[in-house]
This record gives sequence, structure tokens and C-alpha cells, in this order.
Amino acid sequence: MKKIAVLGSTGSIGTQTLDVISRQPERYEVVGLAAGSNVDLLLEQARQFKPKWISVEERALEDRIRSEVPADVIVVSGETGLKQVASEAGANYVVCALVGSLGLTSTLAAIEAGADIGLANKETLVTAGHLVMQRAREKGVSILPVDSEHSAIFQCLNGENAKAIKRLIVTASGGSFRDLSRDQLKNVTVEDALKHPNWSMGAKVTIDSATMANKGLEVIEAHWLFGLPYDQIDVVLHPESIVHSMVEFTDTSVMAQLGNPDMRVPIQYALTYPERVASPASPLDLLKQGTLHFREMNLERYPCLRLAYEAGRSGGTATTVFNAANEVAVARFLRGEISFLAIEDTIEMALSKHSSVPSPTLEAILEADDWARTEAASYR
Amino acid sequence: MKKIAVLGSTGSIGTQTLDVISRQPERYEVVGLAAGSNVDLLLEQARQFKPKWISVEERALEDRIRSEVPADVIVVSGETGLKQVASEAGANYVVCALVGSLGLTSTLAAIEAGADIGLANKETLVTAGHLVMQRAREKGVSILPVDSEHSAIFQCLNGENAKAIKRLIVTASGGSFRDLSRDQLKNVTVEDALKHPNWSMGAKVTIDSATMANKGLEVIEAHWLFGLPYDQIDVVLHPESIVHSMVEFTDTSVMAQLGNPDMRVPIQYALTYPERVASPASPLDLLKQGTLHFREMNLERYPCLRLAYEAGRSGGTATTVFNAANEVAVARFLRGEISFLAIEDTIEMALSKHSSVPSPTLEAILEADDWARTEAASYR
Repeated sequence: MKKIAVLGSTGSIGTQTLDVISRQPERYEVVGLAAGSNVDLLLEQARQFKPKWISVEERALEDRIRSEVPADVIVVSGETGLKQVASEAGANYVVCALVGSLGLTSTLAAIEAGADIGLANKETLVTAGHLVMQRAREKGVSILPVDSEHSAIFQCLNGENAKAIKRLIVTASGGSFRDLSRDQLKNVTVEDALKHPNWSMGAKVTIDSATMANKGLEVIEAHWLFGLPYDQIDVVLHPESIVHSMVEFTDTSVMAQLGNPDMRVPIQYALTYPERVASPASPLDLLKQGTLHFREMNLERYPCLRLAYEAGRSGGTATTVFNAANEVAVARFLRGEISFLAIEDTIEMALSKHSSVPSPTLEAILEADDWARTEAASYR
Repeated sequence: MKKIAVLGSTGSIGTQTLDVISRQPERYEVVGLAAGSNVDLLLEQARQFKPKWISVEERALEDRIRSEVPADVIVVSGETGLKQVASEAGANYVVCALVGSLGLTSTLAAIEAGADIGLANKETLVTAGHLVMQRAREKGVSILPVDSEHSAIFQCLNGENAKAIKRLIVTASGGSFRDLSRDQLKNVTVEDALKHPNWSMGAKVTIDSATMANKGLEVIEAHWLFGLPYDQIDVVLHPESIVHSMVEFTDTSVMAQLGNPDMRVPIQYALTYPERVASPASPLDLLKQGTLHFREMNLERYPCLRLAYEAGRSGGTATTVFNAANEVAVARFLRGEISFLAIEDTIEMALSKHSSVPSPTLEAILEADDWARTEAASYR
């Protein structure tokens, strides 16, 4: 039986993870839940899954939790609490579904504790891929991708020799604004940006899809997860989001994973791998779908993706800066402080000012992260 | 090193197999070649690959071969010669690229000799799938599919548990006449029928593609090769022939194998499995391709496929009759004796007259085969 801790349990991925878990109760025991400030939902989850550890964002929220759960449940908070749920709750499998760079330290704590990781937090690998993958190898733990694109690639690599990979082909829907020109992007609103054509996701990742920063993060993540240089990772536009990604092999065969856009499929695969079990998702009806389109990804149209490749190739702390600047810029856009196009300007500015530190330590990463956030917060 | 015998070496699959082998000389030794009556090409192949055994269709052709090869080469002929090349030439891998039901006895001989089989001859499994698969299991030999569709499914199953298969989705281009109505099919010529839109293949299989009898044979072959009931094997029209086939799993994930239509890719995979090596085929350019279409397969439009499913579900000798009647009818169509639509009529007539023998012996199969050929030869 898998003993699972879910970090970010009240978010989009977290709730879907618990949905998947609830359908296979004989396979899983939820030993820990960590969330932010959505205490109502967290308590509801605690009643259903009966974890022994619960963590919330702030100490002030601990008492309300304590008053409503059995006395033997350990309630903690903050970054320390997160790490405790990741490493002390007895989980042998930790789903890291936190949004943003918060995921890094708790994922590292889970790896140190020897737990396998279901990784939905892109920033963990984007900011510290070299540290995380090395430590995972040393501790003998598996990092299983939860993202639909990385799960697709992971599935395409089933039974294959990594040496036979020619390139990864990551698909991108194009996001909410895929039919708009650069000029039309100048005046788009937050409301427009939050309408993703295919996927129902959290606000941050929906905006990241519209800017293509999300695909940039995925390319960097794929670089670490599958150990391939950036020249072997391509992105193609695929508006239908049916082919979740592909792998081209040296013999010219291309393997692809297809399905309806439903995150519960990759989430479940990360939990049941190498097995497959019945899923609540609706089966793909290719006949109803009828047509699949593939178009070239234009890096002029999507500068955030170009910047991600540039940051990835620079390596070191550049990807941390890419991510932190993007995170701050998206938050500012969502608050109405800056325009949609100012997101890419913020990232470009931060990267151009930054002197990348090669093979950075965790400290250097956090320092670069802080620096980029400060820069991004005051840009314009 | 694989010691290879190629049965049907001068045909379309045979020559492409030797093309693949010639590019990896360090991996392969050709120990036997068997062909029909194309002695010029066979001699050219013998000079290049230096097999120790050569078989031709008729005894009368033996002398010419003998006069042009080294004295230690063993030259044989006929069905006995075929079986000798399959089982006595020292091959540990036999590529069975014979067209029609001729492939069965030589494939069985190769299995008895303990050789793995690269199977391009559909009729072997269509007529005697139960005997061939059982004997292969008992002898511990692998049957590796060479057909692009079965190779695709085989690749999609890499690293997967067969229990997790929901269904196989075999793609069909629709053949030369896919844009014609039933009415328009009445007066089509042999020349028209031989123009396949995507694949360059032999005459028999090109006609079989136009009638969809080929897809019928593939469905029956898939039934034996992957051990699934007919309800779990579907066919979809996919005009571009880029997705060579797919597998849907219980978790709703669909794995697909894509590539340009080039038989050298599945041929090579059957030889190098589980490895993949560089191929002479041109890589797939999905951006140039742009669009992939999928349409429902209409069994009214393609009665040969309906008849194949019916024969497959009846089991026993019904599939042998399907295949033999089709083989004779196609030959008669190619000779201008019957119309295109008379092919399906011939098969339907033979199946309706036949009393299927369940779990037939090899003798019963050959008897049903003879019977169906006689019936089909005199129909109309």
C-alpha cells in the first residue's frame, strides 16, 4: 500500500489527486495533507482521508484545524510544516502539487526521507533540477511526472532505451490567446487570459499557458527529467491538446500518448506506474474529434518560450530567475498592476540584468530567486 | 549475430529486408534466401549476401542458380526447398515475407527449428493462428510482426501489461478507391486499383487495401498475435497513413506509433527489437504534414472487412476460406477475369457455402484452403 502525502491538497492538482486516490482506497493511505489557507476544503479532505499530519500556510490557522480533527492528528504550519508533512509523516510517496518555487524545499525533504515523488510542481526542477535529480539518484527514489506532457513522454519511453531517443516533441495548445496577433495582445484583460481553450487549471498555469512561459518551464523540466540537451526538446503547436506529447526515436518511429484533456489520467499514472487501472476520465473519441492539427511554434510570437530556452541553455541560476520573474509578473498581472505583455518584458529585463551562477547551491538558488522577485516587483 | 533466412527475398518486403540488413552488416549474416522465379534478382542477392542455402520455386530453375554460385552453396526448390531454407540453413531468425498461404508450412518449419520469426506473411496467422502461436509458445520462439500496423501495436505495448489493454485501434488508409462510392466501384480497372495513395507495395496487397480485405487479414492477425477478442480490435480510417496504429488502455491513455509510410522501419524494428537503430527512412515532419484525419470505418462500404470480422468470429477454418477465396479472386481480378466488386462476392459466396471446422488440424486447414480455391476459381 502506498502511504501518500499530498502537498498542495486544496489546489487544482491536489483535489484531483485526492479524487483519484478516493477511487482506489485499497491501494492508498493518505498520511499527510498540506494546503494554504483554504481551511474549509482542507478540513473536508481531512474528514474524508484521515491523515495523521496536516499543514497549513500560517500558524494562525492551526487552532481552527486542531479544534475540528481528532486529538492525535499533528497540525503544523509554514515552510517547516510543509517539510514535516513531506518527510516525517511516514509517506513513501509524496505528491508535490504546490504552485511556484515553494515546492523545492519540501520536495528535497521528501527525497531525503526516501519517498518517491509525484511531481506536479514545475519549479522544483526548473530552479534546482541538478540538485534534485542528483539527490533522487543517490537516494534511489523515483521522480514521476504528473504534468500531462511529461507523463506522455514518460509513457512513450516505457520499455525503451534512452539512448535511442532522437528528440522529445512537447505539444502546446497555444493557450487562451493563440488566435491573437502580437498587436492584439496589448490590451487583453485578466478575464480573457483565464479562459483556457482545453484545460481547466489554476490561474497561474492558465496565464503561463497564454504567455507560453508554461511551455518554457516544461521544456526546462523535461531537460532535467529525461536528461536531454535543449536541442533535443522541441515544441509544436497542437490546438486540440489530444496528443499530450511525443518522442521521436533514432529509427524515425514517433511514439505519442493521446487522450482527452483530463489531469486525472497523468495523476493516476504517476500513482499506479508501472500499472494502469481504470480511470474516471472519459475515453478519447478520435472519430468525434476527427482532425488533429500540428503547427510550427513561433518564438517571435511567444517570447517567453524563447527566453526559457535561452535561460535553460545558460543554465545555472538563469532558470531560477526566469521562473521567479515570471511568477511575480503573473501575480502583478492578475492584480491588474501590469499589462499582459509586461510579463515577458519583466522576465527579459530580469534575465538581462542577471549574472548566472553555474551549478548553484540551494543557497545561491534562493538568493537568485529573491533577487529576481525584487527586480520583477518594481519593474515599470 | 543474427543468422537470417529470408523467405520471399525478391518480393517487396524481401528486398526491403535485405536493404535493412545491408546497412547493419555487423549485426546480421544471411544464411538462406528463398524466392520464386525472379532468378536474376535472386542471383544478385546471392552475390551480395553469400547465403549457404538458396531455394527457388521450381526444380527447373535450380541449374541456372548452381552454375552461378560457389560449389558449396546448397540449391533447393519447391515447398520442400522453402522448408529446408527455413529449418536447415542454420538460421536463428527467419523473415517470412512470402505472399499468400505458402508461408504457413515454412513458418511452422522455422518454428520447429527454434528460430524467431519476423512475420510479414499475414496468411500464416490468418489460416493457422491457433497452431502457430501455440507451437511458438511451446518452442519459446518470438513472433515479431513486420506489418506496419502490427509493428505499431507491438511498439505501443512496449513495457505495458497486456491486461491493461482496452482495445487495439488499427488504422486504414482506405486504399486506392477510398473516395469512390460503391456505385463508382463497379467499373474500376486493375490499373486504377494498383495506385495506392500512400504505400508502395506488391500487387496483391495493394488490391487487398482497395477492397479492405487486407485490413480484414490484419484484424485476424492481430487477434492471434496479441491474443485479444475481435470486440477489442477496431479499425478507423486514417487517410494519411501516418499513425500506423494505436492501443487504448484501461486508464483511457491511447498510445500511438507514427512515421512516414516506409516499410523499412517496421522491418528493421522486427530485426533489432528491443533495440532501435538509425533507419534509412526519412523522419516524420508533422509540421509539413499539418493535419491528421480520423473517420469511422463503414462496413457497408467495405464488405470485405465485415466478412473478415464474421470469419474471425466464426473461427475454425472460416478464416482460411476467407483468405483463400480472396487470394484466388484477387488473382482473377488481376488477370481481368472478374470485376473488382466480384472479389467480395467471391469471398461471401465461399464463406456462405463453407461449414467451418473448429480448431482445425493443419490437414483440415489445407483441405479447406483447397476447397475454397476451387470454389473461388469457378465462381461466375
